[in-house]
Amino acid sequence: MDTWKDTTATGGSGPLAGLRILELGHFVAAPFATRLLADLGADVVKIEPPGGDPVRQWGEQANGHSPWWSMHARNKRCLSLDLKHPRAREIVLRLAGRADALIENFRPGQLDKLGLGEAALREARPNLVIARISGFGQDGPYRDRASFGVIGEAMGGLRYLTNHPPEETDLPPSRVGISIGDSIAGLYAAFGVMSALWQRDRSGGAAKPFTLDVALTEAMLSMMEGTLPEYGVFGTVRQPQGSRIKTAAPTNAYPTRDGKWLLIAANSDPLFRRLARVIGRPELADDPDFSANPGRLRHVERLDAIIADWSRGHDAAEVDRILTEADIPSTLCFSAADIAADAQYQARGMVRELEDPLIGRVLHAGVVPHVPQAPGDIRWTGPAVGAHTDEVLNEAGFDADEIQTLRQEGVVR
Amino acid sequence: MDTWKDTTATGGSGPLAGLRILELGHFVAAPFATRLLADLGADVVKIEPPGGDPVRQWGEQANGHSPWWSMHARNKRCLSLDLKHPRAREIVLRLAGRADALIENFRPGQLDKLGLGEAALREARPNLVIARISGFGQDGPYRDRASFGVIGEAMGGLRYLTNHPPEETDLPPSRVGISIGDSIAGLYAAFGVMSALWQRDRSGGAAKPFTLDVALTEAMLSMMEGTLPEYGVFGTVRQPQGSRIKTAAPTNAYPTRDGKWLLIAANSDPLFRRLARVIGRPELADDPDFSANPGRLRHVERLDAIIADWSRGHDAAEVDRILTEADIPSTLCFSAADIAADAQYQARGMVRELEDPLIGRVLHAGVVPHVPQAPGDIRWTGPAVGAHTDEVLNEAGFDADEIQTLRQEGVVR
Repeated sequence: MDTWKDTTATGGSGPLAGLRILELGHFVAAPFATRLLADLGADVVKIEPPGGDPVRQWGEQANGHSPWWSMHARNKRCLSLDLKHPRAREIVLRLAGRADALIENFRPGQLDKLGLGEAALREARPNLVIARISGFGQDGPYRDRASFGVIGEAMGGLRYLTNHPPEETDLPPSRVGISIGDSIAGLYAAFGVMSALWQRDRSGGAAKPFTLDVALTEAMLSMMEGTLPEYGVFGTVRQPQGSRIKTAAPTNAYPTRDGKWLLIAANSDPLFRRLARVIGRPELADDPDFSANPGRLRHVERLDAIIADWSRGHDAAEVDRILTEADIPSTLCFSAADIAADAQYQARGMVRELEDPLIGRVLHAGVVPHVPQAPGDIRWTGPAVGAHTDEVLNEAGFDADEIQTLRQEGVVR
Repeated sequence: MDTWKDTTATGGSGPLAGLRILELGHFVAAPFATRLLADLGADVVKIEPPGGDPVRQWGEQANGHSPWWSMHARNKRCLSLDLKHPRAREIVLRLAGRADALIENFRPGQLDKLGLGEAALREARPNLVIARISGFGQDGPYRDRASFGVIGEAMGGLRYLTNHPPEETDLPPSRVGISIGDSIAGLYAAFGVMSALWQRDRSGGAAKPFTLDVALTEAMLSMMEGTLPEYGVFGTVRQPQGSRIKTAAPTNAYPTRDGKWLLIAANSDPLFRRLARVIGRPELADDPDFSANPGRLRHVERLDAIIADWSRGHDAAEVDRILTEADIPSTLCFSAADIAADAQYQARGMVRELEDPLIGRVLHAGVVPHVPQAPGDIRWTGPAVGAHTDEVLNEAGFDADEIQTLRQEGVVR
């Protein structure tokens, strides 16, 4: 590890200070994994094609740059490299030789075609941890199928459940609004990389280097709680429950006078007693239909209608204040504006105002998890294509003339 | 590390073999984090109240046991302890003294009241990594508020987006059907613990022990992509998009003749050309309204209606086969039954049939991430309350007489 002390200054001061990651990623999953690692202090070198990662063009653009990118690529060093150029392989291997772990999300087989399979990478760096993220995994009958985050979410079982029951709507199941399958796969990859590195490095590097084979579908399935076990035991197929929870009531989103949705989770007997008082219907807590959870579940539609009648009579801010004072778990369904204005996020440094040289003032989510003794930091925002090409190549032993030649030949940008 | 070699046999053979975790958790978040660690080979000791973790009662029950628990607590050793008993503190500290990390999700302040604050825990084990999971974090104005997974999802911004646009429905935003806010917080905790342990142990234990302060809200917010940055730059508030993706078309869930939902993501020009051919409308690929993504987005309702007309004429299995053959990213929205029957999950060991001594035959999701060189394993299913009380206390130095006394006094069960 100590051979890299000279360049750990490019990492941060969090728990991962001193860690070196090479990213061969694009879109969401692998770059999300490396964002988490970089946030905690790792030095992440991202290899991008000359045209840049497609996420640079995603979402609304400011001066031709993406605010999403500002956060997605923060704290990373970007090297622009044409992987199809014959000289690219040598550069990737040189960089892999200096890394603790490599994270990639090419289609299975793609890197092998470029001469960058696991054997070649481990020749360059025998104890390199390699995390491979793909739609369906590195083997099996679907290995070569095309995939996206939404596919992983649907095959993992999430999309099926994200809907109202068919008797309430004929609309299709809703997307959750973000590429959550990609991000969850990225989280599993980041967790897996640190697990593999812990085992490798606690023994001074004697343990074998692990490969993490993360499939979007499997990352999603791993989160699905009792869905699969219950099917195995009873043969029952869990069905969409809409806004409610099947096993407890009341817990739902209720409308307010000003057109917002307020979430209330008063699904224990003491909480329900408090809620009944707050909505001016204290007698409900002693009504046999509602006093205990089984009754509340049986009469949930009537119960929800009573609560909605009350909530519809107030603005969201007022309902929120009343329920918070009564210590009943509840919240507005936060929009981006609500998040930006929230006192707790502000107090915890979780909404950060930054100056991005490419787009000006921007807000980022803070560093998660929060580490009080060594809070990771946002050292810089998502860089321009090739912003660190020279710096990274120089560290890897290429001199200025060589770098100029590589640029002239179109290998790097 | 080597002082514990005698008991590492209780862990598994994955990348985390030799790691010792103490769980003071309940419900979903902390126990989910420790499931991930145990799956990769860690020895997890879970401290439960005499009545057991409430999840034991959640969901459908088989012989009075929960299939969800079978998976949620697999590979863990369960010790039953009444934390309110005066002698409990000594036992927790003795166990903490033998652990690498402790993971808990009590309300902030609760453990301090029991004499188990960070200072006391680190007196027992100076370099203990501590992960604390809570609704809003260990400080800030909302610290003491009641919370649940759904609250974290709503305040993190996920619930607001998980809906169809208001012009399409007046139903509330849907829940995703699982406690995803809890599980994502658990994932961040597992990742954070391994990050902290990597730094601690690579230097032979010289680095300071970190605390991970994981808030459900913040874990969720950290996943929200461009939502907050775009609000910061443009002041625009991202709105729910239902089943579509705002920036690309066609990608949606389409109905089939047999009442299922099929997801199609043909949102690049070449994919759309293939799709147009497959649905018998090849001319659409050259129609200026649909040939490129901006046009497809402008006319997305007309486009989706054309695709739905086609999908409604076929059963799901048929549509699935046709699209797979054409290499168009698509999938049925998988139910539990679809997951259990899927060839790829089977080939990858991701649906495992097990014999649970408490409930009989059950299905579990496999171990994620998959580590080809050292696949973690399901060593046992979720144990009964107190199944490992004697074993764990014995390892911690209590002899049979002492354990009997503790049991008679109601300290352990």
